[in-house]
Amino acid sequence: MKNQLPTILYGGDYNPEQWPEDTWNDDIKVFKQADINSATVNVFSWALLEPAEGQYNFSILDKIIEKLSAADFKIVLATSTAAMPAWMFKKYPDVARVDYQGRRHVFGQRHNFCPSSPNYQRLAQKLVAKLAERYGDNPHIVAWHINNEYGGNCYCENCQRAFQKWLQQKYQTLDRLNQAWNNNVWSHTIYHWDEIVVPNELGDAWGPEGSHTIVAGLSLDYLRFQSAALQNLYRMEKRTIEKYDDHTPIMTNFHSTPNKMIDYQAWAGDQDIIAYDSYPAYDQPAYQPAFLYDLMRSLKHQPFMLMESTPSQVNWQPYSPLKRPGQVRATEFQAVAHGADTVQYFQLKQAIGGSEKFHGAVISHSQRTDTRAFQEVAHIGHDLKRLSTKILGSKTPAKVGLIFDWNNFWSYEYVAGISQDLDYVGSVLDYYRQFYERHIPTDVISVDDDFSQYDLIVAPVLYMVKQGLAEKINDYVAAGGHFLTTYMSGMVNESDNVYTGGYPGPLSKVLGIWVEETDAMTPGKTTQVVYEKDGLATDGHYLCDLIHLTSDHARAVAKYGTEFYAGVPAITENQYGQGTAWYVGSRIDHAGLSHLMDEVLQVADVSGLITTPTDLEITKRVKDGHEIYFVLNMRDEERQLPAELVDGWTDLLTDEQPQPKMKGWDLRVLGKNN
Amino acid sequence: MKNQLPTILYGGDYNPEQWPEDTWNDDIKVFKQADINSATVNVFSWALLEPAEGQYNFSILDKIIEKLSAADFKIVLATSTAAMPAWMFKKYPDVARVDYQGRRHVFGQRHNFCPSSPNYQRLAQKLVAKLAERYGDNPHIVAWHINNEYGGNCYCENCQRAFQKWLQQKYQTLDRLNQAWNNNVWSHTIYHWDEIVVPNELGDAWGPEGSHTIVAGLSLDYLRFQSAALQNLYRMEKRTIEKYDDHTPIMTNFHSTPNKMIDYQAWAGDQDIIAYDSYPAYDQPAYQPAFLYDLMRSLKHQPFMLMESTPSQVNWQPYSPLKRPGQVRATEFQAVAHGADTVQYFQLKQAIGGSEKFHGAVISHSQRTDTRAFQEVAHIGHDLKRLSTKILGSKTPAKVGLIFDWNNFWSYEYVAGISQDLDYVGSVLDYYRQFYERHIPTDVISVDDDFSQYDLIVAPVLYMVKQGLAEKINDYVAAGGHFLTTYMSGMVNESDNVYTGGYPGPLSKVLGIWVEETDAMTPGKTTQVVYEKDGLATDGHYLCDLIHLTSDHARAVAKYGTEFYAGVPAITENQYGQGTAWYVGSRIDHAGLSHLMDEVLQVADVSGLITTPTDLEITKRVKDGHEIYFVLNMRDEERQLPAELVDGWTDLLTDEQPQPKMKGWDLRVLGKNN
Amino acid sequence: MKNQLPTILYGGDYNPEQWPEDTWNDDIKVFKQADINSATVNVFSWALLEPAEGQYNFSILDKIIEKLSAADFKIVLATSTAAMPAWMFKKYPDVARVDYQGRRHVFGQRHNFCPSSPNYQRLAQKLVAKLAERYGDNPHIVAWHINNEYGGNCYCENCQRAFQKWLQQKYQTLDRLNQAWNNNVWSHTIYHWDEIVVPNELGDAWGPEGSHTIVAGLSLDYLRFQSAALQNLYRMEKRTIEKYDDHTPIMTNFHSTPNKMIDYQAWAGDQDIIAYDSYPAYDQPAYQPAFLYDLMRSLKHQPFMLMESTPSQVNWQPYSPLKRPGQVRATEFQAVAHGADTVQYFQLKQAIGGSEKFHGAVISHSQRTDTRAFQEVAHIGHDLKRLSTKILGSKTPAKVGLIFDWNNFWSYEYVAGISQDLDYVGSVLDYYRQFYERHIPTDVISVDDDFSQYDLIVAPVLYMVKQGLAEKINDYVAAGGHFLTTYMSGMVNESDNVYTGGYPGPLSKVLGIWVEETDAMTPGKTTQVVYEKDGLATDGHYLCDLIHLTSDHARAVAKYGTEFYAGVPAITENQYGQGTAWYVGSRIDHAGLSHLMDEVLQVADVSGLITTPTDLEITKRVKDGHEIYFVLNMRDEERQLPAELVDGWTDLLTDEQPQPKMKGWDLRVLGKNN
Repeated sequence: MKNQLPTILYGGDYNPEQWPEDTWNDDIKVFKQADINSATVNVFSWALLEPAEGQYNFSILDKIIEKLSAADFKIVLATSTAAMPAWMFKKYPDVARVDYQGRRHVFGQRHNFCPSSPNYQRLAQKLVAKLAERYGDNPHIVAWHINNEYGGNCYCENCQRAFQKWLQQKYQTLDRLNQAWNNNVWSHTIYHWDEIVVPNELGDAWGPEGSHTIVAGLSLDYLRFQSAALQNLYRMEKRTIEKYDDHTPIMTNFHSTPNKMIDYQAWAGDQDIIAYDSYPAYDQPAYQPAFLYDLMRSLKHQPFMLMESTPSQVNWQPYSPLKRPGQVRATEFQAVAHGADTVQYFQLKQAIGGSEKFHGAVISHSQRTDTRAFQEVAHIGHDLKRLSTKILGSKTPAKVGLIFDWNNFWSYEYVAGISQDLDYVGSVLDYYRQFYERHIPTDVISVDDDFSQYDLIVAPVLYMVKQGLAEKINDYVAAGGHFLTTYMSGMVNESDNVYTGGYPGPLSKVLGIWVEETDAMTPGKTTQVVYEKDGLATDGHYLCDLIHLTSDHARAVAKYGTEFYAGVPAITENQYGQGTAWYVGSRIDHAGLSHLMDEVLQVADVSGLITTPTDLEITKRVKDGHEIYFVLNMRDEERQLPAELVDGWTDLLTDEQPQPKMKGWDLRVLGKNN
Repeated sequence: MKNQLPTILYGGDYNPEQWPEDTWNDDIKVFKQADINSATVNVFSWALLEPAEGQYNFSILDKIIEKLSAADFKIVLATSTAAMPAWMFKKYPDVARVDYQGRRHVFGQRHNFCPSSPNYQRLAQKLVAKLAERYGDNPHIVAWHINNEYGGNCYCENCQRAFQKWLQQKYQTLDRLNQAWNNNVWSHTIYHWDEIVVPNELGDAWGPEGSHTIVAGLSLDYLRFQSAALQNLYRMEKRTIEKYDDHTPIMTNFHSTPNKMIDYQAWAGDQDIIAYDSYPAYDQPAYQPAFLYDLMRSLKHQPFMLMESTPSQVNWQPYSPLKRPGQVRATEFQAVAHGADTVQYFQLKQAIGGSEKFHGAVISHSQRTDTRAFQEVAHIGHDLKRLSTKILGSKTPAKVGLIFDWNNFWSYEYVAGISQDLDYVGSVLDYYRQFYERHIPTDVISVDDDFSQYDLIVAPVLYMVKQGLAEKINDYVAAGGHFLTTYMSGMVNESDNVYTGGYPGPLSKVLGIWVEETDAMTPGKTTQVVYEKDGLATDGHYLCDLIHLTSDHARAVAKYGTEFYAGVPAITENQYGQGTAWYVGSRIDHAGLSHLMDEVLQVADVSGLITTPTDLEITKRVKDGHEIYFVLNMRDEERQLPAELVDGWTDLLTDEQPQPKMKGWDLRVLGKNN
Repeated sequence: MKNQLPTILYGGDYNPEQWPEDTWNDDIKVFKQADINSATVNVFSWALLEPAEGQYNFSILDKIIEKLSAADFKIVLATSTAAMPAWMFKKYPDVARVDYQGRRHVFGQRHNFCPSSPNYQRLAQKLVAKLAERYGDNPHIVAWHINNEYGGNCYCENCQRAFQKWLQQKYQTLDRLNQAWNNNVWSHTIYHWDEIVVPNELGDAWGPEGSHTIVAGLSLDYLRFQSAALQNLYRMEKRTIEKYDDHTPIMTNFHSTPNKMIDYQAWAGDQDIIAYDSYPAYDQPAYQPAFLYDLMRSLKHQPFMLMESTPSQVNWQPYSPLKRPGQVRATEFQAVAHGADTVQYFQLKQAIGGSEKFHGAVISHSQRTDTRAFQEVAHIGHDLKRLSTKILGSKTPAKVGLIFDWNNFWSYEYVAGISQDLDYVGSVLDYYRQFYERHIPTDVISVDDDFSQYDLIVAPVLYMVKQGLAEKINDYVAAGGHFLTTYMSGMVNESDNVYTGGYPGPLSKVLGIWVEETDAMTPGKTTQVVYEKDGLATDGHYLCDLIHLTSDHARAVAKYGTEFYAGVPAITENQYGQGTAWYVGSRIDHAGLSHLMDEVLQVADVSGLITTPTDLEITKRVKDGHEIYFVLNMRDEERQLPAELVDGWTDLLTDEQPQPKMKGWDLRVLGKNN
C-alpha cells in the first residue's frame, strides 16, 4: 500500500550539506539519544546537485544517504525543485515569477518558480528523473517529498498564454466565457482568447493580492488555474518518480492555516499520503491547529504526516516566546491525537546562516544535549517508540462533517459586499470550536465528500453553491440528514453569478426561508439575537440577515431583539423530508452559538467522547478495534483527568492505571482495559 | 434652453444588455409601479457597440432605446467611452494609463484611459459621432451623458509631451517657468522644454498620490494640466454631439466629496447641466452631503441632477448598513431640497456579476416588489410625481457665499508645513456646518463668482491668492461687504510662491493684521482661545497663528489664553471702508466657532429660514415667486415640526396642513398658503 | 592643521542665487546684526554652474563669493554635486538610482545619484575640479563642503556589476563567498560572480528596505558596498579639491539619528572635520540629541561642526511646534556643550518656493528683524562672539566609552528572530541615558577605538563580534577594565554566521555565562527581574535570556522573579583577571537599569561632573587646562543652579558670579575662578 509508512516516523529536515562531513556521525548519535528514526533530506540542494545545466553531482547526497542508511534511518527524500540555482535565473529569466505588481523577479528567496515556464518544467523534470533513477531502489527511502510548500501566484506572459488555453478548454466558446464572467458589465466582453489578461494590479485587481477584483469570475478562474498549474508540476514530478519507483509513497507538504492559494482537496487525490507543516502562533487557541489537523486527516480520510513543526521556537512570527515546559510535547502529540502518523521537525540541526538560523532545532547552536529543549524532544521520542505499533495507521471515526471549501474560501473573500470583514476561515472556525469543546470527533470535508456517512453536516458560509450541490443537500436532508448553514450562503453559482429569485438561492427550499435584506454591523455595533425557547439573548456581529419563513415546516429558533427588524427571524429550523435544516442569519457570539448547537446536536443525536465537562482536549483513534483515547491538557495550568477515563483504562505510556492529576501541558494516551 | 429638463427625472442607470431581451418588458412594468420615468443607458457598452475596430453594432442599443421610447421613458443616453474594449488595449497599449508608480496598465477595470492617447481620442470621437448621428433626433432622449465620473491621472510619455506643450503655452519662456517653479532651489533649473518630467513617484513626488512633492509649482501645474486634458476630452465629445444635436442638454457626472482631481468650477461652463453622483457614507453627518449639493448647485447657480445614488446599500464602502425605514426617502429628498431636479439611482436592476453585484438596485436579485426597499422607492416616485411641476427649475437664493477653490484644495494639501494634518475640505466644512445648523441658505462658490450678490463671503484657508483676488476682496469689503478668512490664508501666489513681507500677504491690508509665527498643535494638544467680550474659552486645534494688529481699525475678538503667547490675538476683526473683515487664527472647535459666527452673522445681518431652534434640516426653493420649504428629519428619532411652519402652510404631498409630528427620517415639503 | 577652524562659525546655508542681486547687501546687513560671520554657499547650484554639459558659468557664484568675502564672511563652499541638473538625467539616464522596488528614477528631488554611474562620476569630478581651480585660493573659504547628506541605496545594473567586483576583491574565491553567506541554505550557491544579484524586493529582500532578507551576509555586504561606494565618491571629490587646495578643511555633512545607510565610523578618517545636521523632533527627550553630538565628537575625538539646524521650525516632521522662548538658544548651545565649534542653520534666508519654503530661517518670509525668532538668533550670535576664543578647539575628556557600531546596527535589525521589536539605537540609548542623567562625560565610540583610555566600556547588543574583538575585550577586562554588554550579544561573526557552542559565543569566557534559551516578551507582557542584593524588582521587556553561570567568578546580580524560569540569572557579573564584566539578559526598565548602573559605576569608579542631584544637563569642555562647564536647562520650567556651580565660578557670558535662578531653557557657561 503506497499510503502506508513502515513505522511512526520521528525526525525532520536535516541538511548535513551545510556542515563538515566529519560532524555527521555525532549528529546521528545525538538523534539516536532522542529515538529519532527518520530524516528528510535534499529539500534545497538543486544548486549542489546541478552546478551548471546538465552537469549533475550527487557525491554529497550519496554520502548523506549512505550514512543515514547505515544508521538505519528512514529517509524522506526530497526532490530539491523548490529553490532554483542562481545560474538558472541568469540563463532563463522566465523561470522566475512576475508578481502581483507586475514585476519579474530575479534570483533570491525560494518557492518562486513560474509554473508555466517551459525551462523550469524541463529542468525540474530532468533533475527528478536523475534522482529517482539513482535512489529509487534504496529500501531506506520511505517517502518521496516533492518540491516544498507549493503556493504563490505568477502573472507572467507564459502564465497568461497558459491561462488563455486553460480557459479555452474549460469554456470552449467565448460566449460561454463572457456569460460566466458576466462581461457585459463595464464593457468587458472578450472577442479573442488572446485579449484576456491576467488579473494583477495592472489589470482587473487592486488592494492586497486576492482581496479585490472587478471580474470575480476571471479572478476565481485564475486562482483555479494557478492551483491547477502547480498541481500539474507536482504530477509531472510524481509521474517521473513513478517510472523508477512504483512502491514508495509520494507526497508534497501542505502548509498554512490553511494555504489559500492551493485547493488541497483538488490535490488530495494525487498525494499518496497527506503531509502538513504546522506552525501555530503563540496566541492561537488550541482548537485552531486541531481544526487544521482534522482538515488534513479528512483530505484522504487516512492518517497524515506532521511533516514540519518546531521543537522550540520559530523565527518568522512577530513574537516567538519559548514553549513552556511540556508544551512542545503537548502540541506535537495534538497532531498525533488528530491522526498524524509522524512527528517531524524543521529542523534537526540549526543552521548558522540563512534566514532561518534562529528557528528552533533538535541540535541547537549550542550543540549540547543537556538543554531543556533537547530533553523534551527526547521525551517525545521515547513516547512515540512505545506507541508506534499501537497507533500506526489507526483511524478516527467521525459523525460530524464540517465543510471547508476552497472555491468558497476564494469567492467569499472576493465579495465586494456590505462589510469589509468577510473572513471565511473565521466563520468555519466558529463552528469547529463547538465540536472541539464537546470532544466530538469531526471531519473537515469537501462539498464532494459522501454526506451519508455523517449525522450532521455543517456548512458555514456556503456562499458558492455549484451545480448539483443543492440537490445533494436536499437529498441528504430528505433522507433524514441534519444540515446547518449560515448567512451569505446559497448566493452564487460556480461562476460567482448571483442566483436570482431571492437568497439563499438553491438552498431556499431545504431551509424554507427567504432572506430579503442584510444589515451590516458597523465597528463596535451588534444586534441582539434572542432565542424563542428561553429568551436567551446573544449578540449578532458582522451582518444580520432579515429572514422570512417560506415553508410551513419552518420556524424561527431565534429572532432579532433590537433595531427596526426586532422580531424578524434570525435563526431558523426547517423540517425537510426526514431531516432538519438550520440557517443562522448572523455571526453570533460563542455562548449564543453554543446554545444553538446544544439543540442541533440533540436533534442530530451526536454526542462527545466523554460526558464529564472538561476543557481538556480529547480525541480517539481506533486500530484493529482497539480504541485509543488521547487526552491533552493544552493549558499551562493543572487539570484533573475525568474519572470516567481512569477506572478501566490503562496509560499506554506507563502501562499503569492513569494518574488523574495532569500538570500544565501534560497528556495521557489511554487504552481500554479488556 | 439647453439647461432645462422636461420634468423631474426619476430613474437611473439601466443595463438591459446584461439580461435576456424577454425580461425587459417586466422590468419596465416594475419601474412604472414606482413612477420611474427615466433611464440612463449605454454607460459601459463600447465593447458591444464596437466589437472590433471600425465595426459598429447598434442592434441591441436600438432595441433598448426603442423599448424605452415606446414606454415613454425619458432617456439619458451615455456615450460609453468610460470603459474601453479589451481589443483596444491589445491593439493600442497607449490607451491605458501609466500610474503614479510608473506602471503601464492593461485591460481591466474602467475609467483608465490616458487623456493624451491619440488612439483613445480618435476611437472615442468616432464612436460618439456614430451615436450622435444615430440617436441625435430621438425626442425621448432628454440628456447626453458623456463618459462617466472623469478622474484619475496618467503619467505616460504622451502625457509628458502634452504637458510640455501645455507649459510652453502657459509660460511662453523657460525663464518664466523657472521663476514660477522657483527652480533655483535644489538645482531644478530647466533649459529645454523636453527636460521636464511628470511628477510621479519616479520623479518629484512621493507618498500617496497628491500628498508630497518637491516642486509644488510643477505638481500643481500637472494637476491643472490633467484636469484640462480630461476637460478637453469632454469638450471633444460634446462638440461631436453638437454637430448632430443642438438642443439636448449635454453633461457628464461629477462625483466624490468632491473629486480632488477635477476642477469642477473650471468645467462648469462646459456642462449644460451639472450632474452629481452622491454616495454619503453611513457615518457622515447630514451637513456633509448638503455641502456637496450646495456646491453642485452653485457651480452654475441652477438646479442640478442627482445622477447616481443608491436605493438601499452600496457595496464598496467599508461598511454599508441598511438604510433605516424612511432613510432613503430623506437622503434622496435632501438633494432635491438643495436644488436637484432629478433623483436617479445606480442601478435600476441589480447585476448578477461584476464588482457591483451587491450594490443596491430598484429591482434586486430577488426580483420581487414586495420588499421594503422597493416600497420606499415607489413612495419617493409618487412624491416626486406630485411635486414635479412645482419644483422643476426652481431657484435657491442665498446671501452667504462660502468659497471652495480647487487651486487651494490642491496647493494647500501639498504644503510641507508645520503640521501633517492639513485638510482643506475639513476646514471649509467647519464653516458650512455653521450655516447649515442655522438654516441659512448658502452658495458654495468659486473665487471667480460675483461677490457683490452676497452679504457675507467666507473663505476658509484662502492659502493661494491669485492675481487680482486680493483687490477684489478689498473692493468688496470697502463697499460694505463682510469677509471672513482663516489661518493659512494669503500665503502664496498662483505659482505657490510665498508672498514676502509678512503673512497673510495681500490680505494683510483688508484684515489689518500681521501673523508673525504659527504654532503647530501636536497630537492631543490644544491652545485655549478666549473671547474678549465675555471670556468664553474654546480650544484651538491644529495650528495657532500669533497675530499682530496693524490697523487702527482692527481689534482682537479673541486672544490666546495659554502658552507663552497668552494674550496674543487669535481672532481679529477689522473695519475696512464700509465693511468688516475677520481673521480666525486657529481651527477652533464647533461651539467656539458658533460663538464667533453668531456675532459675524449679526454684523452681516444674515439670518436663517426660521427662528425656532431645531436640528431639522430646512431649505427653501423658489419658483415663480412661490417659496417651497423642505423640512428634513435627518435622524432616526422623532422630531416636532416648529409651529412657525405649521400654521399658514400646506403640506404639498398631502395638500393638508402639515402634521407636526415627524418620525425619524420623515420630511415635509411645504408651500405657503396664499 | 586641516581640522581647525579659524573661529567659531555662526551662520549657515545661504542661497542668494534664489534672490535678486540687489537684495544681497540688505541680507548681509541683517546677518551682521546677529553677529553671523559665516555662510555656506553653492550647495545646490549645479544646474546654474553647468547649464549644458561642459558649459560652465560661474558668474553668479563669483559675485556671491565676492560679496561675502568683501563683508569678511567665512565661507563654507559646497561642491553642488548632491542634486543633478535636469539635462543630465535626460542625456544619461544611468545617473539616477534604481530603487528598492526595482524602478529607475528620473529627474526630480535630490540626493538621488547612482554611486556606480560612470557618467555621474565623470561629470561630478569635472565640476569639482573647476570649482577647486577657481576658488581654491580664496582665503575667505574656511571649509569645503562636499555633496550633501550622503545616503540612500541604488540597485541598478551598474551597482550590481560594481558589487560583484567588490565581492571578488573581498572574498577572492567563490568558495569563501559561499561559506560567508552560508549559501548551501536554500540552494543559494554561486558558481559565477555574475550570478550575484542585488538584494532588493525583486531578489532576496522583502518588507521595508533594510528590514528583511534571506541571505543576511549578502544584504550586509550590500550595505557595506553601498556605504563604501558613496565614500569613494566623496574621496574622489576630496582628492580633486586637494589638487588645488592643500590647506583648507574638507568635509561633508552627516545627518539623521544617525543615518543607517552610511558607516560614519568608516568615513571619519576621510573627513578633516566632522559636520552634522541636527533636527531633533519636538518630542525627543534631550538626551537623544546629546547622544548624537557625543557620537559625532567621538568619531575623530575632536570638535565637530553643527552644520545644519533650524532657527525656528522645520517643515518636514509630522508636527513642528514653535520653539518656546529661549528654546532655540538652549538647543543650539547643547551642540556646543557637547563639542561643536560651529552653530550653523539651514537656512539663512527663507525660500519662497520649493519643498522647504516653510522651513525656518534667520531672514523669514516677513523679512523683518523685529521678530522673536530673529532676536533669539541674534542673542546666540552675541553669546558665541563672547565665547569664541575660549572654546574653539577645546576637548571633552571622557572615562566612559559607549559602543555604537554600524555593522551591528545593520545586522541586528536584519535578524529574523524571536521578536519583531529589535531596535539597535533604542537599546544603545537606554545606556546613554544613564550617563547623561548622571552628568558623566561619555564618548560614543566604535569597536576599533582604543579601549584602554576608558574606565568603563558599555556595548549594548554586541550582536556581531568580528574577528579579534573578543580577544580585545578579554585583554581590556583582564587588565582591569570594566565591560558591560547585553542580551543578543556575541551571537554572530562578521559574516552574520552564528558562533556555535552556546551564546554569547566568544564573549562567554569574559562574561562567565552560557545563555541556553531566550524568551520573547509578547505585546503587553513583561517578566520580573529581581536584584539579589536588595530584592528590588523591575520589569524585563522585549526578551529574557535564560542564563547559566559557567565561571566560579561569576554571580547573579539579578534573577527572574516570574515564569517557569523564576530563579534563573537575569543579570550577571564576572570577575575576569583584574576587571569585571556584566551581562544584562533583558531590556529592563529605566529605574531598574539605574539600580544596576549605580553599582557598575561604583565598581568602575566613574562619577559625574557634579554631585548635587539635578535634571539640568551638564557638560565640560577643556581648553589649555581651563575647564568650562555648560549647564543647560532643557525644560520649559525654572530650575536652580546647584550651589557647587555658583561659588568659585564665573558666568562667561556676563563675567559675573552665576545667577542661580535659571528660567526654562536658560543656560550658563561657567569658568572656574582662579
